[in-house]
This record gives sequence, structure tokens and C-alpha cells, in this order.
Amino acid sequence: MKKIKLVIAYDGTDFSGFQAQPGQRTIQGTLQETLTRITGEPIEIYGSGRTDAGVHALGQVCHFETTSPIPVDKYPYILRRSLPRDILVLSAEEAASDFHARKSAYWKTYRYQTDRHRIPDLFERRFRTHLPYEVDQPAMQRAADRLVGTHDFTSFCSAKTVIEDRVRTIYRCEVGEDTHGFFIEVTGNGFLYNMVRIIAGTLYEVGRRNLDPEQIPAILEGRDRRLAGPTFPPEGLILLEVGYRPWQDFHRSANVISP
Amino acid sequence: MKKIKLVIAYDGTDFSGFQAQPGQRTIQGTLQETLTRITGEPIEIYGSGRTDAGVHALGQVCHFETTSPIPVDKYPYILRRSLPRDILVLSAEEAASDFHARKSAYWKTYRYQTDRHRIPDLFERRFRTHLPYEVDQPAMQRAADRLVGTHDFTSFCSAKTVIEDRVRTIYRCEVGEDTHGFFIEVTGNGFLYNMVRIIAGTLYEVGRRNLDPEQIPAILEGRDRRLAGPTFPPEGLILLEVGYRPWQDFHRSANVISP
Repeated sequence: MKKIKLVIAYDGTDFSGFQAQPGQRTIQGTLQETLTRITGEPIEIYGSGRTDAGVHALGQVCHFETTSPIPVDKYPYILRRSLPRDILVLSAEEAASDFHARKSAYWKTYRYQTDRHRIPDLFERRFRTHLPYEVDQPAMQRAADRLVGTHDFTSFCSAKTVIEDRVRTIYRCEVGEDTHGFFIEVTGNGFLYNMVRIIAGTLYEVGRRNLDPEQIPAILEGRDRRLAGPTFPPEGLILLEVGYRPWQDFHRSANVISP
Repeated sequence: MKKIKLVIAYDGTDFSGFQAQPGQRTIQGTLQETLTRITGEPIEIYGSGRTDAGVHALGQVCHFETTSPIPVDKYPYILRRSLPRDILVLSAEEAASDFHARKSAYWKTYRYQTDRHRIPDLFERRFRTHLPYEVDQPAMQRAADRLVGTHDFTSFCSAKTVIEDRVRTIYRCEVGEDTHGFFIEVTGNGFLYNMVRIIAGTLYEVGRRNLDPEQIPAILEGRDRRLAGPTFPPEGLILLEVGYRPWQDFHRSANVISP
């Protein structure tokens, strides 16, 4: 029995999210069916976490176990030929027997990206939320800075969230601008349901000067979903990376390696 | 009765080409149905030319006639709300009564673009042909230079082409490189069936050193489809612009206007 770790990318537009559901086209379901066909044995896929319908990934991680004799380094090649074009396997490697895509993860980085042009870029429409209005980016960054740290994020998760412990640590929250519009990149040790989309909606309200950056601490302390901004649509959201070493170690070694 | 000229963009991936066909999802059919619904009268759309299934446009031009009192400048707004997200109306203007999207066109510019990365960029996969191999771009440009001018392009059109006159003028054919891979931009007074995709396939053969740029004149003179390279797939092809002034005038005034 081998445990195999896959890093995958997907265009979430035409999927009903990551999690397998009967009669729905999902990432997990598609991977399971394809790997079951390839290996000839029932395969169960474990992801680092779910992504919602319409949300994309450039570095989602999942694992599965198999007794198939297929060499691990052949999986990306075989899967690229077998999977639909909106899922792409970036890499495959054998993982330690105690590795678990979700339980072993230390952090995740998401990006929320937008298109500010009056007429949206047609070729980017699947991956950017169209927001053709000016925003105050320095104010957004001041608000983002107030989200960094360990907080109860009840105000920043769907009111439908059943999980009790809403304390999460945000390591980094950066507001930037690319060729199309502003983007937000956020790294944390875990994210609650809709959390990044609510962070994006709240920072946008700051950018539009409907909220002041100084109000962020009170929104966090209020522990009430109604205090934060709207839940932004899924198309602008991308899971960029999942980390399997502590964020601090990751950063320290990254500093040593890069000049 | 007003004549309205539209400039439109589309992601051709999920269309069976431009031309309306019963039971198929097409650009022309979708525009006709939507405009018929909006204006309350049967609308016929005339395009500058067809694009094949899977081919995209960032500046396709079409026209239609209507007695609807809807102000012309409202069409882009109304159509953006009514059309599916893979067709986008960029502009609308009233045209002279003798304007015809196809017959009045002097030139068209197409771009063929590729992705050279070993692992294709998932978000660009609909708009680039994946060709993860080195190419000799200066050789490709030398071959492209030999296509410029007035030639019989029988060798560069589908063997199924029924049209008798295969003489066309290429004003410009440039090989370049962007963040993803090489691209080819070609402007001409008209293009035969599959012509840009065969030009792309032939220039690629030159880039791979399977053909020499000096062979291009003999390929043209041979007037035999089998002499040129393969027909490249549709996904990398984009109709960029259609010109309604002679190319020479266009260039002259462009030179005057730009500093």
C-alpha cells in the first residue's frame, strides 16, 4: 500500500465544488472516478479542505492510498491524459504513511482577484470578480493589517457555520494590484466557511470608504456576521498553496535559500 | 430602420463556431435570439466572417438592422446583461446604410498564441495551444516574411476549400513571444478556410527546424495543401481586429496620430 500526495490545479467554474456529491460534477468525485478506473481499485481522495462551487485552485493538495504498481512519477502524465481539461495534476509524490492532506496542513494561502476595467476582460472572466470602481488601496491594507494575528473570526464566517471554535491565526494579509485590478492574498492556519470571501467583501467596503480600517477590531470583537461586509462571489477566489511545514520555519528557510 | 455595428468578443470554447446552425450553440445564433427577444422583431446578424468552433474573438464585427427605438448607445449595456458570459459586446454604433460587416471590411488581424510551459497554465488553456518545445523564432520570422505580399494561398487552405480565387494579400506577419510562449500575428485582406491555423502549423515546423524558411516560396508556388504544415488546433486562434479603412491609410493616419 502506497500513499500518494497530489498537487492539483482546477478551474472551479464548471464544478459544484470540491466535495463529492451524488449526481454533481465535483473535483473529488472526478478524481476518484478517474483514479478508480486507472488503478482498477476503489480510490478515496482526501483533500486539504473543500473549496466551494466556482472557486479555483492552483495548489490544492490531496492524497490517496493504492496498491497499484503504477510508478508514482507516472501519475501526473497519466492523469493529465485522463482528466477533463479543467483539472490539472501538477505533481505526484509518495508521502509518509502518517501524511494526511488535511490534518498535516499548517497553513493555506488564498488569493482573491478582481477586474477593475469598465468592460471586463473576457478571457479572465472566469477568474476575476468584476468591480469597475476606484478603491482606496492604502486604506484596505490598513484594514488587512488589523486582521493579521490570532482572533475569533465569527464575524468573518457564514452564519451557517456549525464549527464551534472560530479562532484562527492569519499570518499575512496583503492588498496589491495587478494588470486587472486589486487583489488580496491571505495566509492563515485555517479558514472558516466563506471566510476569505467575507474578508474580500469587507476590505472592499473599506476601499470604497463605506467602512474605516479602525472599525476592524470592533467587527472582530463583535462576533456577529452582520458586522462585516458582504460575501464576495466565488469566481475571484483561488486556493494558491497549502503548507506542510510551520509558516515560521517555511519563512526562515525561504530567507536562507533566496539571496 | 437603423443599421447598427457591433464590436464583440467571445470565448469560442463552448460554441460550434460563429455561423448559426440548427440545434447548435453558435455566436450568430445566440446574438440573433437575444436581439430578437430584446427588440421584439426578427433580427438577422451579419458577421465580418465566420470563425470555426473553438476559435475566439476580441474584435469581431457584425451588423444588424432594426426599427427598435432602443438608443444605439444602450445596446452594449443591455446586451451585457442579456448575453451568456462568454459573449461580450464591446461597443455599438449606428452605421451608414451602405455599411456591411463583411463586404466593407478591408483587413483582419488574427493572433495565434501558445503555451510553452511543460505543465500548461490551467487558466490560459482555453486560449493557448500547448506546445512545450523550443522553437527557433528568428527562423520562424524569416519564414513569416516570405508569406507577406500577394500570393495564391492554395497550399495554406483546407483541401476542402470550394472558393476558386485563392489569391490573398498578407500585409504583416509577425512572430513574437509573450509570457507563455511564441505567438504569430497576421494581418491580411482576407483569409481562406483554416489559413491562419495552417500558417501557424507551418511556421511551427520551421521553428522546429523540420522546414527551412527558404522553402516557403516553393510551398506557395506548389499550390498543394500537402506541401504546407499541419492545421493547428482552434484554441490558440483569436480574431483580434477587423479594419474598415484600407490598411495603408490606417497605417498612415496611425503614424500621424501616434508621436
